[in-house]
Amino acid sequence: MSLVVVGSVAYDAVETPHGKIDRMLGGACTYIALSASFFTKCRIVGIVGEDFAKEDAAFLHSRNIDLEGLERVPGKTFFWSGVYSHDMNDRETLKTDLNVFASFNPKLPVSYKSQPYLMLGNIQPDLQRGVREQMNGVRFVGGDTMNYWITGFRPQLLATIAEWDFLLINDSEARLLSGEHNLRKAADVIHGMGPKTLVIKRGEYGAILFRRDPKLGDSHFIVPGYLLETVFDPTGAGDCFAGGFVGYLAESGFDLATGHIHPKELRRAVIYGSVMGSFCCEQFGTERFRTLTRKEVDGRFNEFREFTEF
Amino acid sequence: MSLVVVGSVAYDAVETPHGKIDRMLGGACTYIALSASFFTKCRIVGIVGEDFAKEDAAFLHSRNIDLEGLERVPGKTFFWSGVYSHDMNDRETLKTDLNVFASFNPKLPVSYKSQPYLMLGNIQPDLQRGVREQMNGVRFVGGDTMNYWITGFRPQLLATIAEWDFLLINDSEARLLSGEHNLRKAADVIHGMGPKTLVIKRGEYGAILFRRDPKLGDSHFIVPGYLLETVFDPTGAGDCFAGGFVGYLAESGFDLATGHIHPKELRRAVIYGSVMGSFCCEQFGTERFRTLTRKEVDGRFNEFREFTEF
Repeated sequence: MSLVVVGSVAYDAVETPHGKIDRMLGGACTYIALSASFFTKCRIVGIVGEDFAKEDAAFLHSRNIDLEGLERVPGKTFFWSGVYSHDMNDRETLKTDLNVFASFNPKLPVSYKSQPYLMLGNIQPDLQRGVREQMNGVRFVGGDTMNYWITGFRPQLLATIAEWDFLLINDSEARLLSGEHNLRKAADVIHGMGPKTLVIKRGEYGAILFRRDPKLGDSHFIVPGYLLETVFDPTGAGDCFAGGFVGYLAESGFDLATGHIHPKELRRAVIYGSVMGSFCCEQFGTERFRTLTRKEVDGRFNEFREFTEF
Repeated sequence: MSLVVVGSVAYDAVETPHGKIDRMLGGACTYIALSASFFTKCRIVGIVGEDFAKEDAAFLHSRNIDLEGLERVPGKTFFWSGVYSHDMNDRETLKTDLNVFASFNPKLPVSYKSQPYLMLGNIQPDLQRGVREQMNGVRFVGGDTMNYWITGFRPQLLATIAEWDFLLINDSEARLLSGEHNLRKAADVIHGMGPKTLVIKRGEYGAILFRRDPKLGDSHFIVPGYLLETVFDPTGAGDCFAGGFVGYLAESGFDLATGHIHPKELRRAVIYGSVMGSFCCEQFGTERFRTLTRKEVDGRFNEFREFTEF
C-alpha cells in the first residue's frame, strides 16, 4: 500500500535574507514525496533531464521513494529561481525555465496503478485528470492547484477536482476559485464542486480544514502556524504540508475497507502537515529532510498540542 | 472587587462594505468596559463633552458600569471617523477631532483607588503612569499602546510599561516596540521591558500569549481567530479582546491573596478575549453588546474548543 505523488521535479535557485543557493533540488513532487516519506511508502511520477544528479536520485531513494515513474529524457530539468522579501511574505520569480517539464505527460508504471492513495501536485488540470484515469484501485485522491489554472483553465480544473476527495490550496486561491472572500462561504462553494475535504493554507498563520460529511454535516478545524525562531527558506513549505497531510492519512488515518476517515484523524493529518511545513523552513530547500527523524516529527506534533490546549 | 478602565470615550462615524453610520458610541474605554462587563464590575475613567447623550450613559449604566470617573466638561466629545477597505484589512482615518479629550488628565474618584484590577486603554504613556500612581491597592495592571507612542514617546512608554503585569498590542506594534521581526524574539525583548504577560493580537488570525514565569520559564499559547460568516464592523474588536481578557481574569483567574494566575486561566482569558472581539464585529460599533448574553459568550468559548481540539 503506497502513495503515488505526481508533479514537478526541479532545480531551484533561491535567495532569502539568510543566504543564496544557486542550485538545489526542488519541485512540488520532490517536496511532497520527501515529506510523505516520513509516514508511508511513496512512488513518484515526474520528468527530469540529463542534468539530474545521481546524488539527488540517491537522496530520494534513501527515503524509500520509488523512482520508477521518474522519466529521464534529453534536455535540461525544470529550473526556477526566485528571491524572497525581507519578511519572507513575498517572493519574486526571477526565472522559470520549463525545459523538459514542458512536455510532461505522466505515464504510470504498472506497479503504480493499483495503489490506493494519489496526491496530484500543482500541474495542468487535464494532466492531473489523466493520471487519475490511469489508476484502477485508487481510494483517496486529491491535490493542489494555483491561480494560473483557476483563471485560465477553469472548465478543465472543475472537471478534474469534481473527482477529488481532497483539495489543498492557499487562501487567495480559495477566494479566486470560489468567488467568495469569506473563507466559510468559499469552503461551502468548493465543497459543492466536489472535494468534501478542503484544506486552506494560510502561510505563517497556519491552516483551516473544512469538511463536509454526509452524516456529520459541515465542520471546520483551525490550526495556527508553528512559531519558528528563524524562517530560513519557505520554499516548498506548502508542498511539505500536503505531503505530511496525505502521508499521515495513508499511514494510519484511512480505513481502506470502508473508505472511512475518522474526523480526529483528519485533524491530526492537518497537524502533521503543519509540522512538516515548519521543518521545511528551517534550512534551504530539502536540506532539513536529510537529518530529520520521525521522533522529531512526533515531538513537534506534541508541541502543537502544548501551545494550543486550554 | 472591580476593574478600573481608563481611556477614550468617543463618537465614531464608520463606513464598512455593509453600511455607514454617522454617529455611534465608541472609544477604547467604552469597548473595553462593555466587553469586561460580561465578567466583572467595571468603573470607567474618561472625559466627554456636553453632547454626550443620556441614552449612551444609560446603556453603560445598564451594563453595571460605574460612571463616577467619567468627567463631563464644556465642549464636544472626541470624534473619529474612518472607512474600511473592501476586505476589512485596512482602514483609513477621515477625521480625528480630539475636542475635550485633548485636555484629558485622569483623576480617580476615591472609590476607585483601592480596586485591584487596572486596564489602561491606549492614551499618552505619562497619563497611563499617572493613573497607576493614583491607585493604592492595585494587584494586576496592564494596558494597550500604539505606534504613535512607541515611536514618539519611547522613554515615557518604557517607564510606564516597566510597571505593568500585562501588555496587549498587535503584531506590528510588537515588532516596532522590540525592534525584532520574529514574534518569539520580539516577545523575549518585551518581557525584558517589564510585562511578563504579553498578548500579541493578529486581527483575523487570532492572538498569541507569551508568558515569562519565574518558576515555569517561558511559554506561549496560540489561538486562531474565530471564522465569522460576516465581519460587519471591526471597530473596537481589539479593545473588546482586551476587555474579555482582563475581565475574565478579574472574575475568576487571579488569586488576590497570592497574586497567582494559573497558566490555564491565562489561556482561557485569551479565548474569552477572542470571543468578545468576534462578537464585536457582528454589528456596528457597540450594538452587539445590547443583546449579547453570558450564555452566548460561553457558547462561543466552547466553539473555540471544538474547532481547535485534535
